[in-house]
Amino acid sequence: MAERIDMLRALMRAKGWDAVVVTGSDPHGSEYPAERWKQVEWLSGFTGEAGDLVVTLDHAGLWTDTRYFIQAERQLAGTGIVLHKTRVPEQVLIPEWLERQFGGEALIAVDGLCVGADFAQSLPGTVISVPDLLSPFWTDRPAIPQTPVFTVNPGERRREKLDWLRAFLRERECDGILLTALDEIAWLLNVRASDIEYNPLVISYLLVTQTDVCWYVLKGEVEDPESGATFSILEADGVRILPYADIDYLPSEASGRLFVDASTLNYQLYSSLTAAGVPLEEGTSPVGLRKAVKNMTEIGGMRDAHLQDGLAMERFLYWLELSVEGGREITEWDAAVKLGQLRADLPQYRGDSFETISAWGPGAALPHYVTPHAYAPVIREGGLYLCDSGGQYDFGTTDITRTVPLGRISALEREDYTLVLKGHIDLAMAIFPEGTPGCRLDALAREPLWRSKRNFGHGTGHGIGWFLGVHEGPQDIRQNLNPVPLQPGMIVSDEPGIYREGRHGVRHENLLLCIDAGQNEFGRWLAFEPLTLCHFETEALDLSLLDRSEIEWLNAYHERVYRTLSPQLPREIADWLREKTLAIQV
Amino acid sequence: MAERIDMLRALMRAKGWDAVVVTGSDPHGSEYPAERWKQVEWLSGFTGEAGDLVVTLDHAGLWTDTRYFIQAERQLAGTGIVLHKTRVPEQVLIPEWLERQFGGEALIAVDGLCVGADFAQSLPGTVISVPDLLSPFWTDRPAIPQTPVFTVNPGERRREKLDWLRAFLRERECDGILLTALDEIAWLLNVRASDIEYNPLVISYLLVTQTDVCWYVLKGEVEDPESGATFSILEADGVRILPYADIDYLPSEASGRLFVDASTLNYQLYSSLTAAGVPLEEGTSPVGLRKAVKNMTEIGGMRDAHLQDGLAMERFLYWLELSVEGGREITEWDAAVKLGQLRADLPQYRGDSFETISAWGPGAALPHYVTPHAYAPVIREGGLYLCDSGGQYDFGTTDITRTVPLGRISALEREDYTLVLKGHIDLAMAIFPEGTPGCRLDALAREPLWRSKRNFGHGTGHGIGWFLGVHEGPQDIRQNLNPVPLQPGMIVSDEPGIYREGRHGVRHENLLLCIDAGQNEFGRWLAFEPLTLCHFETEALDLSLLDRSEIEWLNAYHERVYRTLSPQLPREIADWLREKTLAIQV
Repeated sequence: MAERIDMLRALMRAKGWDAVVVTGSDPHGSEYPAERWKQVEWLSGFTGEAGDLVVTLDHAGLWTDTRYFIQAERQLAGTGIVLHKTRVPEQVLIPEWLERQFGGEALIAVDGLCVGADFAQSLPGTVISVPDLLSPFWTDRPAIPQTPVFTVNPGERRREKLDWLRAFLRERECDGILLTALDEIAWLLNVRASDIEYNPLVISYLLVTQTDVCWYVLKGEVEDPESGATFSILEADGVRILPYADIDYLPSEASGRLFVDASTLNYQLYSSLTAAGVPLEEGTSPVGLRKAVKNMTEIGGMRDAHLQDGLAMERFLYWLELSVEGGREITEWDAAVKLGQLRADLPQYRGDSFETISAWGPGAALPHYVTPHAYAPVIREGGLYLCDSGGQYDFGTTDITRTVPLGRISALEREDYTLVLKGHIDLAMAIFPEGTPGCRLDALAREPLWRSKRNFGHGTGHGIGWFLGVHEGPQDIRQNLNPVPLQPGMIVSDEPGIYREGRHGVRHENLLLCIDAGQNEFGRWLAFEPLTLCHFETEALDLSLLDRSEIEWLNAYHERVYRTLSPQLPREIADWLREKTLAIQV
Repeated sequence: MAERIDMLRALMRAKGWDAVVVTGSDPHGSEYPAERWKQVEWLSGFTGEAGDLVVTLDHAGLWTDTRYFIQAERQLAGTGIVLHKTRVPEQVLIPEWLERQFGGEALIAVDGLCVGADFAQSLPGTVISVPDLLSPFWTDRPAIPQTPVFTVNPGERRREKLDWLRAFLRERECDGILLTALDEIAWLLNVRASDIEYNPLVISYLLVTQTDVCWYVLKGEVEDPESGATFSILEADGVRILPYADIDYLPSEASGRLFVDASTLNYQLYSSLTAAGVPLEEGTSPVGLRKAVKNMTEIGGMRDAHLQDGLAMERFLYWLELSVEGGREITEWDAAVKLGQLRADLPQYRGDSFETISAWGPGAALPHYVTPHAYAPVIREGGLYLCDSGGQYDFGTTDITRTVPLGRISALEREDYTLVLKGHIDLAMAIFPEGTPGCRLDALAREPLWRSKRNFGHGTGHGIGWFLGVHEGPQDIRQNLNPVPLQPGMIVSDEPGIYREGRHGVRHENLLLCIDAGQNEFGRWLAFEPLTLCHFETEALDLSLLDRSEIEWLNAYHERVYRTLSPQLPREIADWLREKTLAIQV
């Protein structure tokens, strides 16, 4: 890695740049970029999902949050790159750090394609945009991916969605909207592909005006009948298919007022539009919120996906328990492969929704552990095994975490297992007034941990797409004071945890559907319904830590899991699941 | 009231104003203004603590929040003034309402002294500032109050506070700071008076520079030896005593950069400063946060104040119970008077900290009920009596609510009583990480109510001053996403409630001191310690709704109440309190 930083510094000296800022995103503000845009990883070796790099002539630093501190310290060891911690009280974020170094006088280079307009404008100094900045010395840099494009049926036609978006434009008195976020484009056009690992997205830009729909997308360079058929369908709906690179002509061709979302618009495109004098209306794209509220078809699909996924999970947990009890030497990697195979056997499975975290003992103490392929640790009796995984299906997306006790577990493991489940249940049981944002519910999942001074450094819940990204906004359940209210039809994860470095980790995660719970003299009420179907391990519980209502919730959930899944499981697994889901006496 | 609005409209026609906006504040942004500045009440008859009035030639509207809907509907009946509801999802706030009426073209008059600069600038149209706008036809308008000024000893000298403030000015590169909030001035100078009912404040402005302290204050017009002595003490500390009206000269005399807090600076003064070209640095005054974190002397004083106050409360509750059981006809007003007398008997009592709410049965369903002097309802057996009150003492300020069952209560009253106490206890028991703002804890007090779809329309907690205002910021525990973290030394109220119009109301309120609860591998922890000392009514509880930890908290609190108060109570009241505070078996 050090040579790559050296090559970058040679370029910096030649160009007279004081600093280069490299972020972990792509030209579309994606959370998970394709290989071509994993620039932070290529330069630093850090593989966490969130990290930004700043290189000056005498310093190289990686900024990442609490979730990745342990991983970053390991991966950066020996590189000379310094870890800068974020989401801690003493954090100094990149703009402030640069301000302290250069007092606002720096010449800062960024790959404008891969830096958001919002972020670039927050940097103190003169910011110059250099598209594909690393390409001159990243000689084997991967190309932009191009996979077959296909259509999906989420219960709402693209013409209806376009009509809705055009009404929004009229209301905002704009002539057009430029969509840059890949999940928003896929949602609006009812299309999917596999351009980004785990994310069924098509790398593209989309311009919608009252009369035109222009889709800038890679096409035609590879023989691909599926994409061809898809493009024909879209053209019949009035969508013009244009080459991806033609987005460069947009600034000079655009006429009228253009709505853009600066949180996903890249700085290069933003600068070109501004330089060309295109009047921009900046705001939050309305697609995000509309996409987050699932319609009845999508909700039905999500239920089907979770039934399928639950079958794979129960088969997996049965296999794991018997294998470990039977003394077979199973590694974390073997387990992840087995789970992937069980999901792959399901009809309409389209791949995993993220890289499976399969972690035993100390590995599980890293909330975003990456299971090593070679020399993976063996899963042994006497400890906790944690598995966080999810699938993509034609009709939905799943995300589930279960922690499994293997053999005898310690008193502390039992306490942690129970308190995290208590927090999980307390959030799942919540009833709350209409208009409540998720951040106001976050403490419900944490309070059972806080009481004995335990906590976790990640969010409690994130939104999830319908056969789309496993993380989506705008709602969430976190410590950040995100004001977006939860609404019926939104889906969030519920995933508290406890992580003890060098010892063990516990996390329990279901997806919850937000539902209407009726109205009374105090107003309208909302509640949650679990979508995920898979048992928890009652034998790992310290029942003295749970109250009656929590045990009743668990019993009712377990009965639903058993009744829903058992008819489609082989007899021996159904019998095993019956034992696992027997009601706890209260 | 209608004639007053008519007189205002005649003035509007003469001047060509499209709208007059009248707010419920004074020239210092006070929550509780002196009589002179109760303009909304004088014009509309509405006596709630929060309300703004807009008068146009064909509409008069009062904007107020959920707390005052019932009261406003009663008080506005027949006036022709329309209630505009705020803090509801469909709210249309004043700027937006004016925008819809006049499309940004209106000529809007305000009494610039009594409107904040922030608010005036948010109004759409041409805003003109007319000081004392109502005075031409408010012929018996009260004068600016002027009561004796005295000094207090909160454990930190005014010279130390001035040094700290001057260091802040150097850091912000300002030459001076203009303090306009009365509680900030009183805190900084260690002075008090009684200019505003219930609030021991001195109506004044304060300018602090590196070399000067100029206090613009009413003085010398009335013979007042106490104020004279106080002014001498302050002059010895370098404070120049100037006439209140001389603030008008500040804009022409100010030199250098001036720090102002636009949330309490009035629009008249703001406009004058801007017109005179004084460079303003706008921000949040640092005094508010510093004042909110109590020092050891202040905390000790608050403990003493709560011991005194608890003695008065227990004497009061004993008297009430015996009186009602004995068949004496006690009105809500009689009860309020009795409590006031019991507090007045205490040493160093300085008056009430707000107007006592003494409400039986349906009256208690109004969270901010005002007990009528004449024809007050009689407190009868068979229902709940609610009393929210507080005292000012030389060494602290108190604020307590107790709800008392009289005779038999209904099952719903019992449930409401218990669930509100459950919410109160859950918040009081909370342990939470350093850096947590109060809004993230609000759900802990509400969740026990939410579970059975009950709620309340006011905040859960507010800050409180040390022998200052009963409400102070910047911290609170509310639904609003206020990001200010709680800190050790801050004090907040914990006052959930349930209100059922026409039936009953329940509220339980203690003040909680935020304390350090130690550090472990998960970080630093904070917790609360109740300051208020007064029993709750265990015979009103439905014990099946409380869990073991809640009952244990209540038992421990009750034991502390008994042990602390009983040595200073007469034998018969101490014995009665022993019965009231006996531990509930778990």
